[in-house]
Amino acid sequence: MNRIRSDIAAMQAYVPGFQPSPEEHFIKLNTNENPYPPSPKVVAAIQAEAARGLQLYPDARSRAAREAAGRVYGFDPEWIIMANGSDEVLNNLIRCCAAEGEQVGYLHPSYSYYATLARIQGAMPEPVLLDADLQPSMPLENFAGKIFFLTNPNAPFGFAFSLDFIDNLAGKLKGMLVIDEAYADFAGISACELVRRHENLVVTRTFSKSYSLAGMRIGLAIAQPEIIAALDKIRDHYNLDRLAQVAAAAALEDQETLRTNVKRICATRDWFATELRALGYEVLPSHTNFLFCTPPRRDGERICRELFARHILVRHFSDPALCHGLRISIGSREDMETTLAALRELQ
Amino acid sequence: MNRIRSDIAAMQAYVPGFQPSPEEHFIKLNTNENPYPPSPKVVAAIQAEAARGLQLYPDARSRAAREAAGRVYGFDPEWIIMANGSDEVLNNLIRCCAAEGEQVGYLHPSYSYYATLARIQGAMPEPVLLDADLQPSMPLENFAGKIFFLTNPNAPFGFAFSLDFIDNLAGKLKGMLVIDEAYADFAGISACELVRRHENLVVTRTFSKSYSLAGMRIGLAIAQPEIIAALDKIRDHYNLDRLAQVAAAAALEDQETLRTNVKRICATRDWFATELRALGYEVLPSHTNFLFCTPPRRDGERICRELFARHILVRHFSDPALCHGLRISIGSREDMETTLAALRELQ
Repeated sequence: MNRIRSDIAAMQAYVPGFQPSPEEHFIKLNTNENPYPPSPKVVAAIQAEAARGLQLYPDARSRAAREAAGRVYGFDPEWIIMANGSDEVLNNLIRCCAAEGEQVGYLHPSYSYYATLARIQGAMPEPVLLDADLQPSMPLENFAGKIFFLTNPNAPFGFAFSLDFIDNLAGKLKGMLVIDEAYADFAGISACELVRRHENLVVTRTFSKSYSLAGMRIGLAIAQPEIIAALDKIRDHYNLDRLAQVAAAAALEDQETLRTNVKRICATRDWFATELRALGYEVLPSHTNFLFCTPPRRDGERICRELFARHILVRHFSDPALCHGLRISIGSREDMETTLAALRELQ
Repeated sequence: MNRIRSDIAAMQAYVPGFQPSPEEHFIKLNTNENPYPPSPKVVAAIQAEAARGLQLYPDARSRAAREAAGRVYGFDPEWIIMANGSDEVLNNLIRCCAAEGEQVGYLHPSYSYYATLARIQGAMPEPVLLDADLQPSMPLENFAGKIFFLTNPNAPFGFAFSLDFIDNLAGKLKGMLVIDEAYADFAGISACELVRRHENLVVTRTFSKSYSLAGMRIGLAIAQPEIIAALDKIRDHYNLDRLAQVAAAAALEDQETLRTNVKRICATRDWFATELRALGYEVLPSHTNFLFCTPPRRDGERICRELFARHILVRHFSDPALCHGLRISIGSREDMETTLAALRELQ
């Protein structure tokens, strides 16, 4: 197929976590979804908008959603871009900053999709390894490429860099620094405020985790207006459909539901971590809605397979840095009790 | 802002047609939307899916929608990719085929977004002009670039190339040939079947026009499985959210609503064309849901402005090849009667 660019033809597709159909009745702890439904106001807003008619294009600038986000995060709307999941804006950030052959940096392990997005652009993925103490194996300010992605809190390990670390790094880094805050609502810290004083800093957020909207594909980025304007040129001109726009605004306006769900998940996570440790698991401290844990026999793959046989999905990565362990998303208390009982049997 | 690629910093953003807020009560004939709401089954499917919960990721492969599309168009699902509006797949086709500096061809005038998408990729937009007889000013098979977009029927002129023309062109063209069939349901002809015998042919469709779903951002492409597999690597791994997936499947499954609406629009279009000609307008024959027409005094801009003052939106293009005329989307019979009365006053 010589009409496809050779680098695209040669590349491996990104493989997202397994999504079973609902009839299979899995306990689903493999893709860091929220076990609780979104705010009832989100559902009501979607249903009303659908009834109102869908034959007209949406607002190309997602104004209502950006204004709602502005109120939550404390920014004027021109500092905010809405996206079709944060993945869209991660993709467009690479397109904005890195031409063919230029470097796109990120920690490894972290979100492996950055590498896929860099390859699609013909750019060079430049992983910086985490050492045994979960520290970058080189000072990140020495990264000489065009754009660096820092997942904070980190996935799949769950730890978080401090705001001082990010502030210092943004001040020294030559390229763009993107703080991917997919899990920040569970950590209670955010680099948003730092955006005001660093013209090379971008913070991205997703609605897939804390807002219980993985099914909707909504994300956003916050950065200085010049960066947002450049991203605006690259995004699809109607990137958010009508339903995603009203869902985003309604979700943002119901911070109470967000806080309640985050609190429940963090409480379940802390209880589950204690129980896992009692079973002899090593469990990394987590600022997220998942735990990275290592079974006593360091046989993550076997445990994953055995849980699968019991209709419990957790995430195992074949990467040598991760293959001994498991990433377990935090579901409802009941689902975690079932999972714990299964893990006891598998000792 | 030296962290943004210079070509992105220098490029102009694509400007979509004006989208007024509903409170402004415009008759909206400027972006080729459908005046009729989508199938009630689409609305019901969306509302049911929203109630079912949105906290889990959608099916990454949009299986149900692809299967429904397969039944309508007569292809196995592996010949079909779903997209977030056909714009997403147009974008990804360029990324798939044209590296930086390579040529992306299209007729001019046609859909001006191809040029924007080429520039975002760092590729070279290569317009082939239409001559006074609306014929390409060079034999298209001589195009030596990586990918050529043929909008068929053409927008904004509304004429259509024959399937023989496309068949012949696909057989001779060195690069990929994309038939952008945004308006094909109004023409009643489609190049879909030709995809079976040309490995360089892609047909794209949107749900924004004939399916009355501009508010949802749904499109698809049909091509041989090798091309679909390459596009699958490039698209966002969860490109269609849950609501878009159920909406697409429900829309495809209700061909009766599609046919009824297309028939009504075509009847209104033909009546409106006759009335315009009676007013002294030149009206191009149209195979779409819009008309390109030239007022007797060739003062398209003035008429557009005067209609705007009467809260009627039509599309005027400043391009020298188009500035004498207007593109008028076909709305309901009632809206077109109001528009006609306004045009009579503006003679």
